[in-house]
Amino acid sequence: MAKPKSFDLLLLIAVNVIVAAILTSSPPSVAAAASPSSKWAPRFLGKFSRKTEQIRYETRNFSQRLDHFSFSENPRFSQRYLISTEHWVGPDRLGPIFLYCGNEGDIAWFAANTGFVWEIAPQFGAMVLFPEHRYYGKSIPYGSREEAYRNATTLAYLTAEQALADFAVLITELKRNFSAEDCPVVLFGGSYGGMLASWMRLKYPHIAIGALASSAPILQFEDVVPKEIFYDLVSNDFKRESTSCFNTIKESWDVITAEGEKNDGLLQLTKTFRICGKLKSTEDLMDWLDSAYSYLAMVNYPYPSNFLMPLPGHPIREVCKKIDGSPVGTSTLERIFRGISVYYNYTGDVECFKLDDDPHGMDGWNWQACTEMVMPMSSGRDTSMFPAYDFNLSAYQEQCWKDFGVRPRPRWITTEFGGHDIKADLERFGSNIIFSNGLLDPWSGGGVLQNISESIVALVAPEGAHHIDLRASTNEDPDWLVDLRATEIKLIKGWIGDYYQRKRKVSDI
Amino acid sequence: MAKPKSFDLLLLIAVNVIVAAILTSSPPSVAAAASPSSKWAPRFLGKFSRKTEQIRYETRNFSQRLDHFSFSENPRFSQRYLISTEHWVGPDRLGPIFLYCGNEGDIAWFAANTGFVWEIAPQFGAMVLFPEHRYYGKSIPYGSREEAYRNATTLAYLTAEQALADFAVLITELKRNFSAEDCPVVLFGGSYGGMLASWMRLKYPHIAIGALASSAPILQFEDVVPKEIFYDLVSNDFKRESTSCFNTIKESWDVITAEGEKNDGLLQLTKTFRICGKLKSTEDLMDWLDSAYSYLAMVNYPYPSNFLMPLPGHPIREVCKKIDGSPVGTSTLERIFRGISVYYNYTGDVECFKLDDDPHGMDGWNWQACTEMVMPMSSGRDTSMFPAYDFNLSAYQEQCWKDFGVRPRPRWITTEFGGHDIKADLERFGSNIIFSNGLLDPWSGGGVLQNISESIVALVAPEGAHHIDLRASTNEDPDWLVDLRATEIKLIKGWIGDYYQRKRKVSDI
Repeated sequence: MAKPKSFDLLLLIAVNVIVAAILTSSPPSVAAAASPSSKWAPRFLGKFSRKTEQIRYETRNFSQRLDHFSFSENPRFSQRYLISTEHWVGPDRLGPIFLYCGNEGDIAWFAANTGFVWEIAPQFGAMVLFPEHRYYGKSIPYGSREEAYRNATTLAYLTAEQALADFAVLITELKRNFSAEDCPVVLFGGSYGGMLASWMRLKYPHIAIGALASSAPILQFEDVVPKEIFYDLVSNDFKRESTSCFNTIKESWDVITAEGEKNDGLLQLTKTFRICGKLKSTEDLMDWLDSAYSYLAMVNYPYPSNFLMPLPGHPIREVCKKIDGSPVGTSTLERIFRGISVYYNYTGDVECFKLDDDPHGMDGWNWQACTEMVMPMSSGRDTSMFPAYDFNLSAYQEQCWKDFGVRPRPRWITTEFGGHDIKADLERFGSNIIFSNGLLDPWSGGGVLQNISESIVALVAPEGAHHIDLRASTNEDPDWLVDLRATEIKLIKGWIGDYYQRKRKVSDI
Repeated sequence: MAKPKSFDLLLLIAVNVIVAAILTSSPPSVAAAASPSSKWAPRFLGKFSRKTEQIRYETRNFSQRLDHFSFSENPRFSQRYLISTEHWVGPDRLGPIFLYCGNEGDIAWFAANTGFVWEIAPQFGAMVLFPEHRYYGKSIPYGSREEAYRNATTLAYLTAEQALADFAVLITELKRNFSAEDCPVVLFGGSYGGMLASWMRLKYPHIAIGALASSAPILQFEDVVPKEIFYDLVSNDFKRESTSCFNTIKESWDVITAEGEKNDGLLQLTKTFRICGKLKSTEDLMDWLDSAYSYLAMVNYPYPSNFLMPLPGHPIREVCKKIDGSPVGTSTLERIFRGISVYYNYTGDVECFKLDDDPHGMDGWNWQACTEMVMPMSSGRDTSMFPAYDFNLSAYQEQCWKDFGVRPRPRWITTEFGGHDIKADLERFGSNIIFSNGLLDPWSGGGVLQNISESIVALVAPEGAHHIDLRASTNEDPDWLVDLRATEIKLIKGWIGDYYQRKRKVSDI
């Protein structure tokens, strides 16, 4: 079984907010999907625009240098940003500026799915800004996506450091234009956006007074956390619902492999799993299942949600109910199919499933994973329900060379941003960062789960999944979620209050 | 009078440690000098090597990426670094690593002129590292200085951020090779090197536990400090010795201009100032004087020193003695000449003075000043003894375009590193930085002169000049200097002690 491929795929999917991946990557597709990225984006935007009538903003553009850290001649590019001054109390009253660090997808989608920021802006009298991450959405260099994604030379400037500098330059210019130089900026971000928010607070303390970094796996590099942790956490999400469910899934891989080796085995698998066309290899099927389980762990929310496709609340519970609850005599594969259908076909509309067969396209996150964002992941023999797999850096590098003609720099992120001993490094350095994580989220394994200092704090929600705190509130929010958001608001108010106090002290002098 | 030229020249000279400028720039030359940079370097190295027999190190090289912040294809280059493990107690005892942030010149020269680090290393059991700044000394990309300095494309990667990343990558790799990952790193730097040291502590807190930034004008950007401050401080250094000296110099510019406009005026000036060949313009003469006054302010040390040329202790006092003490009836210009000769010809060996006529060569610091290091400087009408001049950004930018084909980014440094409100920004962010400044040093005007927090402190020496604390101790050191260094040692010991305590706490858990 070609594990690297499967793991590359997961890596690319998993770090994303669920649908962000779909906007920009090549995720496992359902029948309705045509080609990846471009076609997905409008579909999902359209979908979400229905749900977010309360969000009003202007869309603007800002001319950015392609390379902030050299003076080589490069064409500039136009960075899109969304802005709302509707509730802003303005520069005279030092109205705060809430800046969401756009991550790997269309910024309009992130805006629509980060209801928390929009909901709290009025009580803070805050301006809201959603700058888009370079090379995503409409913030594409070189005139077109095709040109920008042509090769390693054009993709070269798609890095986290450049994106942070984009934010820094943009906010500095905007503040100047608004005569708002003294207005405090608070950063927000989820997933990779949360990584950016925390890194931005650390690298640009003069630009932002604090950061809420939700589900930000800034420790998922090198050997900072165990390589098995991601898949162990996915597996635990299933095990906590039902040991037999966990066991069925764990056994299913061998069954699939055995089935695939039979005469007409692939045809049989195609039928069992209702694949459109004919299954080319068992690996494709395993990737498809693998992704679904990991997705499910991330969106294991306590209420129905509607990302890639509609899902019930506690979706893993529902999947396991199907796997465990099938009539006696139901085969392992049929159980798996019934379970997975909760994820891929909850509405029951899908006639057949189309498996993606090109996970290594010229995709933004794939590029980032092949350059800076090397997150080594293995699957342990006992604790994981996935096939055992040891991360192999050479194979990974080889694949990146094949896909992009680029060599990953697996140690760069910890060199640039730290991570090996974050508690000791930041205990007496830095301030005002919230790391929030839900323990059901497999990315929490790479998150900061312990307080680092008085003002660099970890908020941990045992029942939380992937950055649920950033989503709009709903009537179904459990108490812990309501409390979590209240704590975040309180902390942010504290940062801003401290800032005002320091400003007053300075102006009193 | 073409002021911009004069000010560009000063800018390029002044930010340097005195001789560092000579190593790499095109300073006003004395008769003995041939062409700039390459010829100067060995001369000064040789000179200093005599004085520094106690310094022993190995010279090594490290392969670096030319661009850390993109994945564009660039040739790697070889960074030179000096290393001494002679006194290092090794990784098992967590021996500290002292890293001097190489600035704009040959690193061997900085090593020879930073005696403080070498002197204190034994009592700390510290390794000593002097990595060279890219594009200087022997750390030249593209195979040769000629290629590296060919044009804006090849010079593009000569930036402070890239230099900091060089240090970060180098130290990370070295620590790994020495199994010294847990050894604390302390940064040192003077002048631009001090700026790098403080910025490195702020941007890479996981790499270094503290920084001693001596005479680091990190606030000399945009409008953070008054544009007149540099020349005001130079002028004050003269005024404090003698008001009449200050006045004579202040009046001399008009006298020179008037003289130059006479028939044979330039010839007369050539004679008065013993210029080799014939003076081409009064501006050249004024630049030459201008530079000397600013240099003198920087090296206004209390004991004889020997940088560019041998100087007496309190050299400005000596200059003013000559200016004031000339017999009654001595003309203004003759007084100026006698005064300036203390600087340019203390030994009396020089027969005639050669004025440099190409201050805008392809020089490293000129490039940096034309890209990131835009330090606006004006000369005030009343407080300055120099001709009045208002910094003109357009003229500055035009000159940079003419010299290098590059557009300066005057707001970039404050965007990347802050500065506008450093007290408020860092009061609750960051730790363990010493900003030391001598108030006689004109660069102290752009320095941090007030404590920012309990551990980001300013040490101010009213009688100090340019980073005298980093120099080797001498028998003539005044008490305040001995005390200043003792305070620095105590603070650094505190950082290291705290670090060991945190490490113990972690390993106890």
